[in-house]
Amino acid sequence: MKGVDHLAHERNKTEFDVDAMKIVWAGSRHAFELSDRMARLVASDPAFQKDGRTRLGRKELFKNTLRKAAHAWKRILELRLTEEEAGWLRNFVDEPSFTDLHWGMFIPAIKGQGTDEQQQKWLPLAYKMQIIGCYAQTELGHGSNVQGLETTATFDPETDEFVIHSPTLTSSKWWPGGLGKVSTHAIVYARLITNGQEHGVHGFIVQLRSLDDHMPLPGITMGDIGMKFGNGAYNTMDNGVLTFDHIRIPRNQMLMRVLRVTREGKCVQSNVPRQLIYGTMVFVRQTIVADASTALSRAVCIATRYSAVRRQFGSQDGGMETQVIDYKTQQSRLFPLLASAYAFRFVGEWLKWLYTDVTQRLQANDFSTLPEAHACTAGLKSLTTTATADAIEECRKLCGGHGYLCASGLPELFAVYVPACTYEGDNVVLLLQHIADRKRSLYRIQGKREEKKLEVARFLMKTVSQLGSGKKPVGTTAYLGQVQDLLQCCCDVQTAEDWLKPSVVLEAFEARSARMCVARAQNLSKFENPEDGFAELSADLVEAAVAHCQLIVVSKRKEEPDLTPAMARDESDHHNKDEGFIDKLQQDIPGKGVNQQLQNLCYIYALNLLHKYLGDFLSTGCITPKQASLANDQLRSLYSQIRPNAIALVDAFNYTDHYLGSVLGRYDGNVYPKLYEEAWKDPLNDSVVPDGYHEYVHPMLKQQLRNARL
Amino acid sequence: MKGVDHLAHERNKTEFDVDAMKIVWAGSRHAFELSDRMARLVASDPAFQKDGRTRLGRKELFKNTLRKAAHAWKRILELRLTEEEAGWLRNFVDEPSFTDLHWGMFIPAIKGQGTDEQQQKWLPLAYKMQIIGCYAQTELGHGSNVQGLETTATFDPETDEFVIHSPTLTSSKWWPGGLGKVSTHAIVYARLITNGQEHGVHGFIVQLRSLDDHMPLPGITMGDIGMKFGNGAYNTMDNGVLTFDHIRIPRNQMLMRVLRVTREGKCVQSNVPRQLIYGTMVFVRQTIVADASTALSRAVCIATRYSAVRRQFGSQDGGMETQVIDYKTQQSRLFPLLASAYAFRFVGEWLKWLYTDVTQRLQANDFSTLPEAHACTAGLKSLTTTATADAIEECRKLCGGHGYLCASGLPELFAVYVPACTYEGDNVVLLLQHIADRKRSLYRIQGKREEKKLEVARFLMKTVSQLGSGKKPVGTTAYLGQVQDLLQCCCDVQTAEDWLKPSVVLEAFEARSARMCVARAQNLSKFENPEDGFAELSADLVEAAVAHCQLIVVSKRKEEPDLTPAMARDESDHHNKDEGFIDKLQQDIPGKGVNQQLQNLCYIYALNLLHKYLGDFLSTGCITPKQASLANDQLRSLYSQIRPNAIALVDAFNYTDHYLGSVLGRYDGNVYPKLYEEAWKDPLNDSVVPDGYHEYVHPMLKQQLRNARL
Repeated sequence: MKGVDHLAHERNKTEFDVDAMKIVWAGSRHAFELSDRMARLVASDPAFQKDGRTRLGRKELFKNTLRKAAHAWKRILELRLTEEEAGWLRNFVDEPSFTDLHWGMFIPAIKGQGTDEQQQKWLPLAYKMQIIGCYAQTELGHGSNVQGLETTATFDPETDEFVIHSPTLTSSKWWPGGLGKVSTHAIVYARLITNGQEHGVHGFIVQLRSLDDHMPLPGITMGDIGMKFGNGAYNTMDNGVLTFDHIRIPRNQMLMRVLRVTREGKCVQSNVPRQLIYGTMVFVRQTIVADASTALSRAVCIATRYSAVRRQFGSQDGGMETQVIDYKTQQSRLFPLLASAYAFRFVGEWLKWLYTDVTQRLQANDFSTLPEAHACTAGLKSLTTTATADAIEECRKLCGGHGYLCASGLPELFAVYVPACTYEGDNVVLLLQHIADRKRSLYRIQGKREEKKLEVARFLMKTVSQLGSGKKPVGTTAYLGQVQDLLQCCCDVQTAEDWLKPSVVLEAFEARSARMCVARAQNLSKFENPEDGFAELSADLVEAAVAHCQLIVVSKRKEEPDLTPAMARDESDHHNKDEGFIDKLQQDIPGKGVNQQLQNLCYIYALNLLHKYLGDFLSTGCITPKQASLANDQLRSLYSQIRPNAIALVDAFNYTDHYLGSVLGRYDGNVYPKLYEEAWKDPLNDSVVPDGYHEYVHPMLKQQLRNARL
Repeated sequence: MKGVDHLAHERNKTEFDVDAMKIVWAGSRHAFELSDRMARLVASDPAFQKDGRTRLGRKELFKNTLRKAAHAWKRILELRLTEEEAGWLRNFVDEPSFTDLHWGMFIPAIKGQGTDEQQQKWLPLAYKMQIIGCYAQTELGHGSNVQGLETTATFDPETDEFVIHSPTLTSSKWWPGGLGKVSTHAIVYARLITNGQEHGVHGFIVQLRSLDDHMPLPGITMGDIGMKFGNGAYNTMDNGVLTFDHIRIPRNQMLMRVLRVTREGKCVQSNVPRQLIYGTMVFVRQTIVADASTALSRAVCIATRYSAVRRQFGSQDGGMETQVIDYKTQQSRLFPLLASAYAFRFVGEWLKWLYTDVTQRLQANDFSTLPEAHACTAGLKSLTTTATADAIEECRKLCGGHGYLCASGLPELFAVYVPACTYEGDNVVLLLQHIADRKRSLYRIQGKREEKKLEVARFLMKTVSQLGSGKKPVGTTAYLGQVQDLLQCCCDVQTAEDWLKPSVVLEAFEARSARMCVARAQNLSKFENPEDGFAELSADLVEAAVAHCQLIVVSKRKEEPDLTPAMARDESDHHNKDEGFIDKLQQDIPGKGVNQQLQNLCYIYALNLLHKYLGDFLSTGCITPKQASLANDQLRSLYSQIRPNAIALVDAFNYTDHYLGSVLGRYDGNVYPKLYEEAWKDPLNDSVVPDGYHEYVHPMLKQQLRNARL
């Protein structure tokens, strides 16, 4: 950040305390300082430079990743980093690798599903990386539906072993990250068969490669599954294919914490409550939501800074052209994404609290909030990943032509991020413990995001159907307890400013969601068989789930006395002062002007959703067309208020130029000279006359092609 | 197409004549036969195989493209192909290359802007490829705004030459395809300066490289601008950077058809009417719309076939799982895209007619329909390219995890297509003649698609403001002549089936667009300065433009007696039988069941839009929430009707497996064995133990990293 700051004139306009906002964004001073320290450590280490990653062929790229992973591990050992510090370091190295799966899936699976003895045997080896593990669940023909897996693990009582086998082509393990070229071991999921009977899908620790020469063990066929979307991106990862030809492993390599197979081949359930398993899902999904806000904020940071650098049209009398960030069309596309980045950050923080709460309850044998937490996190996972993938691509388009260059960083950000929309399905039920690594991990990407939304929809329909029975809805569905009020209430917005009342916004979102849920429930009730209704109306149900999840993002709070929203609305429709998300912010957050910015962002997020999903709000009669138009007026006014603070709001993410990896998003705004410099590094520029000229271009120009051998 | 057809059970369900539909899709029997012949010619030629394109490093990739381009030219010469045949051949080679720009921009620019003498000198050289040209307009700091270009062309009367110069870094030519490593010549756009005075931006023919050794001429610096989005994709193209240090060219290398510079340095306008230039835009945009339907249909073909192959969940008693195409959530995402592919195809055909019509009128000195045609094509360009880019990515997601593999073809299709959203701006005004090549050409990608929509919005606002003056709106805006009716009409849908009446659908779309236009015009009128209003309300105006363009797609007709929609609505609100797009189809199209399928697709397209933009329809009171709900019911019913015909509807695109380039989209549905086969071709699988293992992985496993040199 030396030299001229081409964005200084923008930073001078800032109306709030950026350092205070950095703490808010990071979640705490501790988190800020730790991540800041690790980001700088990585950025200043030449061994971690990203230069040229998108230009490398597959082999070079992969070898370079192995080098970085080894260097990272070396530094972690040398500096004696804590687990938390090591996680941040790997995060800022910002290159998917086998270590993500080793730390993020292999170790947690053993911790979660292994017995004490199994943990004692395997964890020390894994912690020292004397073995490297991956997570082999999905198969060529089978993704989300774990019960459809075909790989078998047949107990042989004669030798006290399991025989792991791939009976068909479609049963080949397919996708596991780290499997293709690096992992020595894997947790393999297979159908357990003992005494000729099936006992569902379970995990087995299987050694894949020799620890001497790294060759696959006899009977094991494995390799990389080939190129994936994008330059660099996930091609640094060896997602793999694996087939077994009757591989034998000792009986004690089945993960037996929940179900044990005896010497005789009998299955015995342990007394570990299965609900504990489900609690983990809340954690996994919380990290996915946090990752969404990170990916989105990186894209928004790049697009915002470049929109302030780039000028186009509007010059008067030969003067400077207008900064594109000053166009309302640019603002109306960019600022809602900026607001979403902050909104997802905060809902992620709230999910952390939710996880703690659920865990404490589970430990006290209170399973009551689990289904609601399960549904709510599934929905938020789906909502935030979908929105983030779309937003990264929108940010790329907002950068015009130059966004299409790899040097902008946006193509790779998109290609690395999109799998998040498809992965994370039922597999998490197989995990019991924390995922230590904050990195996204491409462990499986076969899921359907619609399923997540349907999980929410099912829970909502169940909640609505039980409203008459006196069962009080909990957590994020508590507002459905006031369903009668919400079916009748009228929005009382009369001026554009009325849309800046938290209670008004909250009520509109609650009424919309409640009315959509009730209408869907009524449509469902027309079907004799509820499952037929669910199948037929699934697209409608997904819409209700989206409405509910958007309400959560709008209304989420970081810390709350209990899960019930603080909507202490009494019968006289009195709106309590501290019921909304914004008043909450007003109380808690220090730093000059920080609150004002967060309020503006919250309203932009909410009112933009209102505009985008206007059909929902109008068809349910929650607001009138006139009120919708006033919301739009207010939105334009909010854009004007955010505009002078836009650069500072993305500076608050505190990303280093190394981490951003974008010429367009450079902190100093010195875009054009650096783009020019970057171009010359392309391999095509190694020679002035390109390879192939003499064989193909010269004969063409000289009319000698007819006789040429091509 | 030998061997087992895994989709035969799907094809047996077909309820219409697929061969007849192929003719409909192609536009005519001639077009079908020609494209079919060229597609097979390319697919059967081993030299054109696509194998491994996404795995190649930049240099290998580029050299391979040079080889294919030379081979294509050789075949074109050997087979004495016509210009039309050659265009199709290049299209099916399906790899962006310098030849796209040579045929698509360089030659047309000379034909359009060159004088007769200039054409006689340069065209024969270009037609024989004795010179290779590109189109150097955009600069590092300047895209859409042609008037902002900085490169100068200063006339030197002493030597009768122009001096071409790049005065700043940001004036470097940047992006032109074919410029980086291949082109020998370029049309360079620069500010014309004579006698110390500026005369706007004009085109100049400039030689860049020696025809002997291909080295850049003295004073010229040029190279490739580096990697772009995606594997393979546009990295086969040498988009380039170019700077001039006082390069001298003869005066007669300025393209002087419209403006001539005399020996004394005086500027003289020719008598060529400038409106002719604008007619070309209609042509260019028509090809872009046609390309959109092609790209979209390829993605839809892949996703539809794979959705019929892939099975997930829903197995009963260990039987087969359910085909994912049978899930309503899948159908509600996929079938509207299938419908859009057909809709864009037909609106593209209609645009061809529009171009002919406009051309004929221009030749008869009738400029009256030009502004409307200009606005309408700008809007359709924006609408179809945006929708197509989003749709390709949606198709990728609909393929689940495997869509993320390059072998699916979808990542490359997306990465190659997305520039269409950004390119094509004001530059086309510089072109006068046909673009012979059907290939998309990455000539410039700095435009903003919102500008296209604002062009439409400006035209609409002008039309509305003139309604009172008695000036009758023409062409696609003719419906605004009935604005009083449209502001008052009430949708009379009472049952879901009512939504299958063309007049009902058409009126709803017309009323929505008319009401949005009028409301925006009223808001604009509140501003003292209309330009301030335009700037402030631009996002709203874009929405009105989108509504208008969607109406065009819904109501477009292939051949019409005149531009006025056949909405012969009389005062008694009588709906004429042949007023809608669907009745038209019923009259014209032969082939068993073809019409029924097209009708279903048209209604899916329209009703899905109605659902997606429900806020527009409800806020303007065009329909009621109850009617919206009925439209949704009808939509679900249409999905069920399309379902058995889905595979045949994508077969009708007549794409070879070579052109599709997708394992998931294979005609025979034999997906899994081919995916497995494809994986082993990755360079990482060249060796069992990966390069880098000994340096980086082995020391890690053996705890020897601390002392390792990495």
